[in-house]
Amino acid sequence: MAERISRNTFIMDSPPLIRSYAAIGGKMEGEGPLSKCFDQIYEDAYFGQETWEKAEGELIRLTVLKALEKGNLSKDDINFMIAGDLMNQCTTTSYGLRDLEIPLICVYGACSTMSESLMLAALMTDSGIGGNVAAATSSHFCSAERQFRFPLSYGGVRTPTAQWTCTASGACVLSPHEEGKGPVVKAATIGKIIDMGVTDANNMGAAMAPAAAYVIKTHLQDRKMSPEDFDLIVTGDLGRVGGTLLIELLGKDGIDIASRYKDCGTMIYNTSEQDVHAGGSGCGCSASVLCGYFLDKIKCGEYKNILFCATGALMSPTLTQQGESIPGISHAVHIGC
Amino acid sequence: MAERISRNTFIMDSPPLIRSYAAIGGKMEGEGPLSKCFDQIYEDAYFGQETWEKAEGELIRLTVLKALEKGNLSKDDINFMIAGDLMNQCTTTSYGLRDLEIPLICVYGACSTMSESLMLAALMTDSGIGGNVAAATSSHFCSAERQFRFPLSYGGVRTPTAQWTCTASGACVLSPHEEGKGPVVKAATIGKIIDMGVTDANNMGAAMAPAAAYVIKTHLQDRKMSPEDFDLIVTGDLGRVGGTLLIELLGKDGIDIASRYKDCGTMIYNTSEQDVHAGGSGCGCSASVLCGYFLDKIKCGEYKNILFCATGALMSPTLTQQGESIPGISHAVHIGC
Repeated sequence: MAERISRNTFIMDSPPLIRSYAAIGGKMEGEGPLSKCFDQIYEDAYFGQETWEKAEGELIRLTVLKALEKGNLSKDDINFMIAGDLMNQCTTTSYGLRDLEIPLICVYGACSTMSESLMLAALMTDSGIGGNVAAATSSHFCSAERQFRFPLSYGGVRTPTAQWTCTASGACVLSPHEEGKGPVVKAATIGKIIDMGVTDANNMGAAMAPAAAYVIKTHLQDRKMSPEDFDLIVTGDLGRVGGTLLIELLGKDGIDIASRYKDCGTMIYNTSEQDVHAGGSGCGCSASVLCGYFLDKIKCGEYKNILFCATGALMSPTLTQQGESIPGISHAVHIGC
Repeated sequence: MAERISRNTFIMDSPPLIRSYAAIGGKMEGEGPLSKCFDQIYEDAYFGQETWEKAEGELIRLTVLKALEKGNLSKDDINFMIAGDLMNQCTTTSYGLRDLEIPLICVYGACSTMSESLMLAALMTDSGIGGNVAAATSSHFCSAERQFRFPLSYGGVRTPTAQWTCTASGACVLSPHEEGKGPVVKAATIGKIIDMGVTDANNMGAAMAPAAAYVIKTHLQDRKMSPEDFDLIVTGDLGRVGGTLLIELLGKDGIDIASRYKDCGTMIYNTSEQDVHAGGSGCGCSASVLCGYFLDKIKCGEYKNILFCATGALMSPTLTQQGESIPGISHAVHIGC
């Protein structure tokens, strides 16, 4: 079983296998540099549904089913799922995955959800209680804009620091360790809420960067590791603004990640050509880049170790309107081969 | 470590100790039959804050701190927390617990959250990775009404099947098994979403009853147990309407729980004298009745085994307005001495 080596960092004893994974994206994601990495691209933003919210539910459902299909698994082979999303009351997960009839643990970590669900799935699998455990999340540009900022039909102008919520989903299935097979989850650190007082709902990267800095620093220090022990340190969706801030923040602590830092939010789009401003965001951003791009790269041996830190801005329009700042959180998951 | 005996039922190997727990309620809860069970009652619905949302954040913060105080623990003694709430984007948890600086796993299960967080905390503790793990949740009548139905100032008339969202919070701290000490968590079943097509946002009990029936039946069958093996089978907030339905549903499967069934939602208020219609509801309902009433009864030996099944209606005003029905979920946790 997993060993806790500090307050909140865990090393897996028999690193759980990520035996199957899938990523599905929308039109914008299909026009970006990672277009070939997605298992499927849907041009129809409605995914055949009547509303944006139902579209997102269909997106996560299709992605979980694709992950099962790629692993030659049926839904009855999955013991339980750990999933969540951005929509109020986690409705994408509740409604989208309802018909699968798989026991469900629903989590909320804003855009950090893929780290959170993957970490919990790995800890439970390594503890001997998991059989096949699925972890999934998603986001949708249109449903997220309506909920967090303005309905699209309002035509609000986006600021330079704003990010573009990805229409994308990633899902994976974990099972107990099998010798010689990968990718596997090797370790994890549970993050904590860090709030440095950012109040701009159009600058989420800055709100999340301190939480990412905390969890990366804690993970490295707890394990007496340096950034060089990883091929890459990957954040979820800090974008260009937040990413620069993260490198600065860690630099002040003598931790230089610049040469091995990647952010899913800047990878998923061509930020100079696509109209996404500071980059991609949303739960589905890091989830789809992990399940569509990184896991294959680890499986084929191109990367041996990455530290995957999806980043969440725990933002609520209600609390922001009440003058509150935006707390951030990030969980770190060491994935390797 | 815990053993999985079926798809989704787990038996603890060394049942984790619930070493400390606390419950705080509001004015209405202080006027109910369980008033003496709360550690504190706050007459001020604002809990000294400016808004209902901030009030609920303060409520959960005070409750977690009270649980720590009763266990002679400081916040640094807690390895991590598992918590969640009803408010959009789990803001009660994010904002209320932000300043405690305790690593956080945020979960969402609507009013089933106390079962969900307790189950996860127990599974992780029994797997050897937990030290002290806190589990908490809360709800607030005023913030919930504004979000899910109507702002209070609108003066909407409530229907006979409507329930009253409790202004209450419950928190507990789990730690590894200690011989001869209790209460302990002995087993758990992860629930799944059941949706029987209920569309009435004022009849949550009916929406949740099938999910409770599923998890109770599954838990009993997986363990080859009967209702008589428990002193009580407790649901979270089915209220009078949902509770009657649950007994009927299980009766059809030949499982008779009538003589040992209790519902926190009907226990917390005097439903014939207080203006709560079908009973109490909200995450804080089952959490505060568990942490304020049941855990003491188990500790002193009055009850030896209860099956605690907090019940959640995964309801979203947005999806309800789009014609969707309300999915329910419930997780079962066997607590004993």
